[in-house]
Amino acid sequence: MTGRIHTEQILIDWGTTNLRAYLVTEDGDVVERREVPEGIMQVPDRRFEAALDRLVGDWRHEDSSRPVLLSGMVGSRQGWIEAPYVACPAGLDDIAAALIRVPAEGRVLLVPGLHWSDGRRDEVMRGEEVQVFGALREVSEATLCLPGTHSKWARVEGGRLVRFSTVMTGEIYASMRNHGILGRLMNGESDDETAFLSGIDRSAEAGGVMHHLFGVRTAGLFDRIAPEGLASYMSGIVVGHEVRDMLALHRPQGAITLVASGRMKKAYRRAFDRIGAAVEIIDGEAATIAGLSAVLAARL
Amino acid sequence: MTGRIHTEQILIDWGTTNLRAYLVTEDGDVVERREVPEGIMQVPDRRFEAALDRLVGDWRHEDSSRPVLLSGMVGSRQGWIEAPYVACPAGLDDIAAALIRVPAEGRVLLVPGLHWSDGRRDEVMRGEEVQVFGALREVSEATLCLPGTHSKWARVEGGRLVRFSTVMTGEIYASMRNHGILGRLMNGESDDETAFLSGIDRSAEAGGVMHHLFGVRTAGLFDRIAPEGLASYMSGIVVGHEVRDMLALHRPQGAITLVASGRMKKAYRRAFDRIGAAVEIIDGEAATIAGLSAVLAARL
Repeated sequence: MTGRIHTEQILIDWGTTNLRAYLVTEDGDVVERREVPEGIMQVPDRRFEAALDRLVGDWRHEDSSRPVLLSGMVGSRQGWIEAPYVACPAGLDDIAAALIRVPAEGRVLLVPGLHWSDGRRDEVMRGEEVQVFGALREVSEATLCLPGTHSKWARVEGGRLVRFSTVMTGEIYASMRNHGILGRLMNGESDDETAFLSGIDRSAEAGGVMHHLFGVRTAGLFDRIAPEGLASYMSGIVVGHEVRDMLALHRPQGAITLVASGRMKKAYRRAFDRIGAAVEIIDGEAATIAGLSAVLAARL
Repeated sequence: MTGRIHTEQILIDWGTTNLRAYLVTEDGDVVERREVPEGIMQVPDRRFEAALDRLVGDWRHEDSSRPVLLSGMVGSRQGWIEAPYVACPAGLDDIAAALIRVPAEGRVLLVPGLHWSDGRRDEVMRGEEVQVFGALREVSEATLCLPGTHSKWARVEGGRLVRFSTVMTGEIYASMRNHGILGRLMNGESDDETAFLSGIDRSAEAGGVMHHLFGVRTAGLFDRIAPEGLASYMSGIVVGHEVRDMLALHRPQGAITLVASGRMKKAYRRAFDRIGAAVEIIDGEAATIAGLSAVLAARL
């Protein structure tokens, strides 16, 4: 009505294991969603352009003026083109100002990751920064938990992401599940809430996570937990340690913003409830879409 | 001189990855030592008798009255014959009374493992109980650390092993080294003492081992530690967490008895020194031999 031309946007979340694409209106409504298990490590011959074209070539062809914004590991050294890290503290504007244009690809832009350092140690993220700003929208102070293979805990102050920490929870879980002595006793991965909560409770006790994990084996050997419940018990142990350790490290005031989907959302919500920490839940995929939209809006 | 007939003993330490044999006098002097990388998981067709015969058949043939005593995972369900666990608290006499004779094999005896439980949780060991009693000899009160794939911390009171805890330090280390994102940045496994001690120091800080482990990646990414030192840094992190967590759990009075050999002995001694915990070191292999001798002496 204002004479402004409304153009859809193509928003891409391209991580290590998956490629997800959203055709979104300027108002943030999702017109169409597509997903393929073609993470950056699975792209044949590193031909990222061809992989993108296979998934959303028609969207780009329909209207070549549509901007394409990509976040995640696609902007890493192992990805399409490296988008150098932006230093924390960083706000949405800093990220938007540091987008990297893919040469000879028209309006294709990569979101940079974030780097935090205190001069002795460093932290990095790629992709989660988009979710953080997508989850918060107008909120300018928050502590967020983004669970995953490498969970991120982020602190936002004055609308800027000031610091964050990474916990290898998902990788430790998968590693113990698939390679070690613990996985051998397990039978399936049924969602056993009682066993999961036992693991959360166990994480409150002394001894450390490497000691508590051995208890998964003996709980199986002495039939204290059925084989179908052992994976849930192990999950509770590692998630419980993550949440307790990060609450102690970040000492959040007020509710944690949990940004997650599916099984992760369920598990972490249970963990926070059991531990007695207030939590506000934002869907992880919705946060990605909102965040990518917000980055584009800040850029355009 | 006393008219007593002196017979040598054949002592065997048969674990998951190695088979070690010692021909020992009744006084505990080692006449000969043999070792093959034929752990119980590597025995063809589970023919344990044949494997034992290949290694020490000549020792048995020379004098068929020589007793053969085996400890370790060879007495587990996956081993030759299962020697049921003896319950803690247990002394040397309890172990000697529960030896299992291998049928049709003459004087071949298996040492049982130990089981500890408080009614809610359980712990198991197989092989370390022999080292504990071998390391202590006449000492009746001690807290021992036996590092390994699954490190054991044991408390002995009144000459009996009353409780113990397992920490999956070695398995977590190997798993992260060989399967995950951390191993990719590593280059060799040079013994970098400075990096190892940095890891020990890091383990004293908040955040937990799963958070500190991710720091191995960023230390590599940002050149804070050279690629050759990253494995040592990671080792320091996991060993440091084990030692601190177990000191907090067991609250030992006085020095810890460290039972270890080779690289483990070196690493854990450094860790205890750095943390400022007094330690007394007993060679792991010597403890095995002395322990097996003591079990036989208590039996005969």
